[in-house]
Amino acid sequence: MPAPFTLLRSDPSTAARRGRLTTRHGLVDTPIFMPVGTQGTVKAVTPVHLREIGAQIILGNTYHLNLRPGSELIRDLGGLHAFMGWDGPILTDSGGFQVFSLAKLRQVRDDGVTFQSHLDGATIFLGPREVMAIQQNLGSDVAMVLDECPPWPCERDVCARAIERSRRWAGACLAAATESGFLAAGHHVFAIVQGSTFDDLRREAAESLAALDFPGYAIGGVSVGEPEPEMLRQVAATAPFLPADKPRYTMGLGTPPQVLKMIALGVDLFDCVLPTRVARNGLTFTPDGPINLRNEQFRADRRPIVEGLDNYTCRTFSRAYLRHLSVANEMLGGTLLTIHNLHFYLDLMAQARAHIEAGDFAPWHRAWIGRYEAGTARR
Amino acid sequence: MPAPFTLLRSDPSTAARRGRLTTRHGLVDTPIFMPVGTQGTVKAVTPVHLREIGAQIILGNTYHLNLRPGSELIRDLGGLHAFMGWDGPILTDSGGFQVFSLAKLRQVRDDGVTFQSHLDGATIFLGPREVMAIQQNLGSDVAMVLDECPPWPCERDVCARAIERSRRWAGACLAAATESGFLAAGHHVFAIVQGSTFDDLRREAAESLAALDFPGYAIGGVSVGEPEPEMLRQVAATAPFLPADKPRYTMGLGTPPQVLKMIALGVDLFDCVLPTRVARNGLTFTPDGPINLRNEQFRADRRPIVEGLDNYTCRTFSRAYLRHLSVANEMLGGTLLTIHNLHFYLDLMAQARAHIEAGDFAPWHRAWIGRYEAGTARR
Repeated sequence: MPAPFTLLRSDPSTAARRGRLTTRHGLVDTPIFMPVGTQGTVKAVTPVHLREIGAQIILGNTYHLNLRPGSELIRDLGGLHAFMGWDGPILTDSGGFQVFSLAKLRQVRDDGVTFQSHLDGATIFLGPREVMAIQQNLGSDVAMVLDECPPWPCERDVCARAIERSRRWAGACLAAATESGFLAAGHHVFAIVQGSTFDDLRREAAESLAALDFPGYAIGGVSVGEPEPEMLRQVAATAPFLPADKPRYTMGLGTPPQVLKMIALGVDLFDCVLPTRVARNGLTFTPDGPINLRNEQFRADRRPIVEGLDNYTCRTFSRAYLRHLSVANEMLGGTLLTIHNLHFYLDLMAQARAHIEAGDFAPWHRAWIGRYEAGTARR
Repeated sequence: MPAPFTLLRSDPSTAARRGRLTTRHGLVDTPIFMPVGTQGTVKAVTPVHLREIGAQIILGNTYHLNLRPGSELIRDLGGLHAFMGWDGPILTDSGGFQVFSLAKLRQVRDDGVTFQSHLDGATIFLGPREVMAIQQNLGSDVAMVLDECPPWPCERDVCARAIERSRRWAGACLAAATESGFLAAGHHVFAIVQGSTFDDLRREAAESLAALDFPGYAIGGVSVGEPEPEMLRQVAATAPFLPADKPRYTMGLGTPPQVLKMIALGVDLFDCVLPTRVARNGLTFTPDGPINLRNEQFRADRRPIVEGLDNYTCRTFSRAYLRHLSVANEMLGGTLLTIHNLHFYLDLMAQARAHIEAGDFAPWHRAWIGRYEAGTARR
């Protein structure tokens, strides 16, 4: 099938890429960060806020939406875009990761996973056909295959079996999406490369999945507890064996410096709950590292979180006010910090894209990370 | 001093009035509902949302803001308007009501009230000079006098003593606001008429406070537990003895039908936590009465909360989606229902103003209440 991805420019001294993903709901300029909208909402913000801060594509969670309100209901109401009032692209995960992290009493067999809902204990089966049917109900622009994510650390034979099972599931997902007309209608399905810390297994997994000619590829099984250098090593051990003309996505990552480092390794798409989750606890991002606005030092601080950053929160409110809202547990505090934190990530992606285009991504991203980490260390 | 209020039109068959209040931060068309912003934020909504739904004036709570973050800090940061990013008019209460309803171990003396903060147990004294100083720090457009609100039911002699004390405090507040230049700078101070269920005491209180020539008057001590007919009777027993050329305000009221009934009794200003508080529990308003979106019957309801009502929530989202957010305890649910509920109240006020202008307020408000109550009874 034709690749939905156009590689516009490759950085001369890193593996960073500037690209463009075509979806049924519009174009996505990469590298890009995807705000996480687990339960049919990016927590605490409206779709209008998301547009204003430059969100291009958001993530929805199959596991959660399938349990509540149910994917058939969302389909009957016109799909996830109409349901949640977001007309831009949506990527959905397969639910597999949440089955392994949230659900109780799960049982993995060759045909799929049986588990109990963390909401009401109901027994649910998810196989390749089921996860594709759910994501079709949701109307995902980019659907992810079901995969088995081995834990960290992990024995080599356990990892090899998970890879083999994941490869068969990936093939079954692709077949289901082909038969149902999902792919032909312009939806994309991305495969997921596992392999834990075993470089040769990662290479094998990448090459065998590449042979199936998916529209895009995720590097999975990273950020599951391993230290950052190990995580970066795994991404570096996988990316070169993925097709250069397909988009690459690391799931669930990361801090701002981590995201820049992954871009330098050739990753195009990111999602992470970090900026939204910590916002609700008063933590917020600056170019000099994160700050916790609940600290006493911000009590009378008249400055915006980041001087000159063009989002509603920074244009309008002082750190002192945002601190007050957070200390008083006012919902608006979570909303305003979420707007800023997401915009901080999205603006960082826009800067990264501009520097890849300008050809100076390598020195720029090193300097950016240097300032961020120096500021963090001073605190 | 010159009245800040212009009476534009009086309804021919009720006591309803169409007026305009002039403040340092702009005009307010009455009758009007004031969204409640207790802790320096109307809960769950941004100032941009408030403007979009037609909010003209909001309420801030002196008791809460004085405890946290403190009125001196807000003054040093430019006043409450700058602090919270709202450049429209703000009315602040005196904090007296919260001292009586929230604080612990309070002791009322002739010079004021000593109480313990509900946040940290600190001992605090509030007298007339203190509440005026706090509201001056906040930069209130309309400040309220300190008063003593007798409980319901209440003995006549207890009520008479509370009225006498409230009258002295009102005089002291007016003197303080005059001396400090607060009034001369265009801020207003409203007196509060108590009197519980004793019509003659209410009349005496209204007349003695009217003699002090305040810029406006509140009818206090209503909605403190008494049944609705008694509450309406108290408002009816007070309003006629207030100056016709001054705005009238009932504090902390009420349901949509109650607000219309008070308008018919000649009240101009309202505030109530009802629309904001219930929004966070899934309760929302329609012309056919309130509905709780958490009910199963709204699971697949494609309709907006109110067909054709021009606010972001009704323009964009189905009842089914709003139900999902509320059931899943998503913050966005509280935000979207707050936007609708406040707009419902503000739109009702706009309708009331238009019907007073058109001269048909009496039949219109009876029909509106009839439909609302019939719909409520059918549920």
